Amino acid sequence: MTDFISNITAVAEEFEQHFAAHLPPVAGLQGKVIEAMRYTSLGGGKRLRPFFVVQTARMLGYDAPGVWAVASALECVHVYSLVHDDLPCMDDDDVRRGKPTVHKKWDEATAVLAGDALLTHAFDLLARDTVHADPLVRLALIRDLTKASGHDGMIGGQMIDLSMDSLPATEETITRLQDLKTGALIHYGVMAGATLAGADDAARKHLSAYAAHIGLIFQITDDLLDAEGDADTVGKAVQKDDDHGKATFVSILGIDGAKARARDLAEQAAGHLEPFGHKAAPLKSAIDFVLTRNK
Amino acid sequence: MTDFISNITAVAEEFEQHFAAHLPPVAGLQGKVIEAMRYTSLGGGKRLRPFFVVQTARMLGYDAPGVWAVASALECVHVYSLVHDDLPCMDDDDVRRGKPTVHKKWDEATAVLAGDALLTHAFDLLARDTVHADPLVRLALIRDLTKASGHDGMIGGQMIDLSMDSLPATEETITRLQDLKTGALIHYGVMAGATLAGADDAARKHLSAYAAHIGLIFQITDDLLDAEGDADTVGKAVQKDDDHGKATFVSILGIDGAKARARDLAEQAAGHLEPFGHKAAPLKSAIDFVLTRNK
Repeated sequence: MTDFISNITAVAEEFEQHFAAHLPPVAGLQGKVIEAMRYTSLGGGKRLRPFFVVQTARMLGYDAPGVWAVASALECVHVYSLVHDDLPCMDDDDVRRGKPTVHKKWDEATAVLAGDALLTHAFDLLARDTVHADPLVRLALIRDLTKASGHDGMIGGQMIDLSMDSLPATEETITRLQDLKTGALIHYGVMAGATLAGADDAARKHLSAYAAHIGLIFQITDDLLDAEGDADTVGKAVQKDDDHGKATFVSILGIDGAKARARDLAEQAAGHLEPFGHKAAPLKSAIDFVLTRNK
Repeated sequence: MTDFISNITAVAEEFEQHFAAHLPPVAGLQGKVIEAMRYTSLGGGKRLRPFFVVQTARMLGYDAPGVWAVASALECVHVYSLVHDDLPCMDDDDVRRGKPTVHKKWDEATAVLAGDALLTHAFDLLARDTVHADPLVRLALIRDLTKASGHDGMIGGQMIDLSMDSLPATEETITRLQDLKTGALIHYGVMAGATLAGADDAARKHLSAYAAHIGLIFQITDDLLDAEGDADTVGKAVQKDDDHGKATFVSILGIDGAKARARDLAEQAAGHLEPFGHKAAPLKSAIDFVLTRNK
């Protein structure tokens, strides 16, 4: 656990420098939208998705500068989704990572545009020569990111989330929702690392299963933190799900059932890292982290 | 003029079939967002941007099926920008192409997500093998679309538009605004046709100038229609700019000055088509159309 914290912190610090360099500089009559892009992107967050890109690639012996471009592209998509999610018509949040959200600091129109611009910029980053020498690798990274973030990925999950009132509140529905809404980008992080490193099919299969399990554990602990956590520690309002009568893993499986499910998934995830031996230590420590995190 | 109308109508009809096939089918628990994507994309519009992709490629002797994928990707970006532009926090429009806008038919959250999904889908379409055999061509098409639509393109123009109150209302500002907001996607349409066809640098230079002029003429006539047009013919509210005290080409150049500028640009645009001989007839007819359109 301590290992993981120091590890992800080190990656996050290194990432921060690269991310700042991969975002456009504030310039032109439209400077405000670029300012908003940088404001909401820099200076915060665990950088969990970049961690998976970088550490998966390194585990497979790949550590070229292109990993930071891919990590930046993925984080652009994650950040844009938060900016749009925070809008009054969505979750209506005023604070994000301890700062006013973009629509509070500026206005809603700027938040819509800054989100749109970050999403667009992600694909700009992935199309650059510096990402990887093989153009087919760059195209695969682009194509996979559209899948992970589009109507059959993250956006699909957000739509399901907004439609829950009219859908059956079953474990199947919740799992599908979370696989898309949160899982798809985490999965992309791991698989993008594998794609950069040229992993073979067997390795990709194990990594894909690992990533899918990590995403679900992440969401189950999110639900547990909302049900059991302390607002000061978690750093955001808790008991929101219960107050809104929202179906979650906790409401369906109960607290003990949700914990047991998370432990079971963690064991399976660890099994999928065995073929990679001791080099898998950073990814292995991530399992314990998502399982036991308290914020 | 009649030639152009029958020409663009024929392209639009052919495009409609291809566009429908290039959008995802409604499926899954998130079906609503895909329904909204299709609802707002299909069945309307002049399809001016697809026209430029298809006719530029054809003029240069290129007519492979990939042109429809590129035209579809470009139209996805145009349509997403309309969906977000129509939101209450932007232009707050209830009707688009004679139908309720997405946020009126469903709700604002669905409109935000449907727009995001269309933008994402555009890059999915461009990354596909079927677009062009050369992966470097596909990457160039992706990279150029991020430029044309992102913070230094369309989104930048929208930001300038929203910031006009605090910017100098000069011809330079308006030209920059329109180059980005409207011009960039029209320019992309022409240049994407050239990229698909493998046009040489000399041809690209002429086509780039042609496209830039077309974009400006388009916007000048838009401003003239708002100032002089009849709401029934134009198909939307007119005199909006003047009511809002908005700086336009008309407010800066006057009606006669704006008309003279448009005619001058049209002459220059025609000059840039001369090297392509009689094959340039469809692109040439587009100049007359954007110059003399009454809606």
